[in-house]
Amino acid sequence: MKLNIALLAGDGIGPEVIDQAVKVSDAVAAKFGHEISWTPALTGAAAIDAVGEPYPDETHEACVAADAVLFGAIGHPRFDNDPSAKVRPEQGLLKMRQKLGLFANVRPTFTFPSLIDKSPLKRERIEGTDLVFLRELTGGIYFGKRGREDNDNTAYDTCTYTREEVERLAKKGFEMAMQRSKKLCCVDKANVLETSRLWRETVQKLEKDYPEVEVSYEFVDAVAMRLVQWPSAYDVLITENLFGDILTDEASVISGSMGLMPSASLGEKTSLFEPIHGSYPQAAGKDIANPLATVLSAAMMFETAFGLKDEAEAIREVVNKSLAEGVVTEDLADGGKAYKTSEVGNWLAEHI
Amino acid sequence: MKLNIALLAGDGIGPEVIDQAVKVSDAVAAKFGHEISWTPALTGAAAIDAVGEPYPDETHEACVAADAVLFGAIGHPRFDNDPSAKVRPEQGLLKMRQKLGLFANVRPTFTFPSLIDKSPLKRERIEGTDLVFLRELTGGIYFGKRGREDNDNTAYDTCTYTREEVERLAKKGFEMAMQRSKKLCCVDKANVLETSRLWRETVQKLEKDYPEVEVSYEFVDAVAMRLVQWPSAYDVLITENLFGDILTDEASVISGSMGLMPSASLGEKTSLFEPIHGSYPQAAGKDIANPLATVLSAAMMFETAFGLKDEAEAIREVVNKSLAEGVVTEDLADGGKAYKTSEVGNWLAEHI
Ligand SMILES: CC(C)[C@H](C(=O)O)[C@@H](O)C(=O)O
Ligand SMILES: CC(C)[C@H](C(=O)O)[C@@H](O)C(=O)O
Repeated sequence: MKLNIALLAGDGIGPEVIDQAVKVSDAVAAKFGHEISWTPALTGAAAIDAVGEPYPDETHEACVAADAVLFGAIGHPRFDNDPSAKVRPEQGLLKMRQKLGLFANVRPTFTFPSLIDKSPLKRERIEGTDLVFLRELTGGIYFGKRGREDNDNTAYDTCTYTREEVERLAKKGFEMAMQRSKKLCCVDKANVLETSRLWRETVQKLEKDYPEVEVSYEFVDAVAMRLVQWPSAYDVLITENLFGDILTDEASVISGSMGLMPSASLGEKTSLFEPIHGSYPQAAGKDIANPLATVLSAAMMFETAFGLKDEAEAIREVVNKSLAEGVVTEDLADGGKAYKTSEVGNWLAEHI
Repeated sequence: MKLNIALLAGDGIGPEVIDQAVKVSDAVAAKFGHEISWTPALTGAAAIDAVGEPYPDETHEACVAADAVLFGAIGHPRFDNDPSAKVRPEQGLLKMRQKLGLFANVRPTFTFPSLIDKSPLKRERIEGTDLVFLRELTGGIYFGKRGREDNDNTAYDTCTYTREEVERLAKKGFEMAMQRSKKLCCVDKANVLETSRLWRETVQKLEKDYPEVEVSYEFVDAVAMRLVQWPSAYDVLITENLFGDILTDEASVISGSMGLMPSASLGEKTSLFEPIHGSYPQAAGKDIANPLATVLSAAMMFETAFGLKDEAEAIREVVNKSLAEGVVTEDLADGGKAYKTSEVGNWLAEHI
């Protein structure tokens, strides 16, 4: 198979971790007889520096032309604490999501037995946790009308959802539930918000199309609690954009394996794969960042974008092997030898 | 001193836990030479059943006439999963907050040494945690315009904030920070939302009036993570209504002492005190619910509403004593003797 992949390394440690995912992807492609054509493109602060725009048109064209997008991380400290800066890396992210129509952000949280003691939670609370969030990514208060009134003294943001937007996200949730344990949780604030009532209504209607799926409806504040109390009680969770932003980040730290968590953002035509961690500017250029989340994002890409399950499995296996054999970066070294980012990448590529 | 207190017991375990807080308050009043006049009033499902309205006018009048309001809990399972029911207990809550102008919800999270092992978090993560959220309670998306358009196929909610609304909440935050460790964290989503930018702007302007307070600005998703990772890093946090709803609930479970956490809702004229736990209908009428959060809410009332610090301290001391001596309800009994709700209340009142 010929695979065309747009490569958006981004900022901070992005380029370094992306390099390792490329090595591993090339190795798995060679093993299974595929050919990958990588198209690098600029994004984030790197793109602002080069062309004054965090998501330039050429980058968009490269993404549209590709079969999938592999993404590193964006963000740079010089934009922090300056939310009013005219051009910001985050705008590129939002523009990219919207222009590529990436409406479903898939964020699994699972545990690695060897890392479970790194969790802030007690072992018995976190053991067996294997959940996945589907966060709506191109609607809601992120993309509604906003502004100022009354001489700049009143600010407003609007949260809007259409039935179709909810439906297409919820359908992906039901489908995912069918492939997993047939449990779906719809997270909303239907006791207060009209958009949440539309969510609940729409999901309730879909229930009859998926009679095997057991659906629960929970309020976002309750889920924020239960994720800490009994994360293993959840399987597939669907939610709107802002709730998803908060809850997926909360969920990401409970497993102790945040540095390893991949994610996918799915659209009708294109899909994008990226580690959930940020651009860690402090570590940039030092060859010390953990590349495993990006490597596992590549595995998700093989499986989800190309339907290549064995290839994905081969990547996951070699990652597990590296963990078992202690071929890990300093964040996981625990007093043992700390390998460089590039050394971990080389080892994975060789052992695939 | 003569203390006029409106007593809103509410639903589920509300009446039982309120009874104990009344006993303890009366005992402390007797000891310090105060006289309490209690005015019971209906609220929640109990009020819907009696007069068809979750926050009747008579209740409002009782609250306005009182020096403080002591509140139990509201909510009843027959309203669950029916977010479109015409009259709901939650509406009473929102109406009450708005009509009484309770704009600042104060929610501390702290640890009791004897309960620390009940936390889902590891001891070393939670030890020393002592933070307090100030959640804006009468603005934002809870009270903005909402509705449907486009033949019922589009729903919207509006989040609005004025500079004054932010300012009065933020000022309370700065004042609280001055009385504690002089650290304040403003939680927003200023990289996306206009209302958050107004929050940040307003807080930034106030900084010069409180030069001793060290202010940090963090995004809500980051705070959702760090609350689980290093809760003890926080002290005073201020935030808008919806973020506060989610984060205070998340914070409430990290200490292992959720059943003990009190809260206050402050207005210009009236203030209200309530346990953060819900109405636990499963436990209602069984005399097994833990009354300590309500008793500690009464302590907050003595201190905050009446400026009676010694009285508050006396209540906190006797609560600590009951914990140390194992005079606790079944949720804290850990295989030891489980006392009834009323027995714990009696013991506290006797030992004050
Ligand atoms: C950077 C920010 C705009 C973004 C979001 O809120 O969606 C980020 O937090 C994320 O979750 O990808
Ligand atoms: C019941 C509900 C409307 C309420 C809220 O969201 O404010 C509750 O969750 C709370 O936090 O007191």
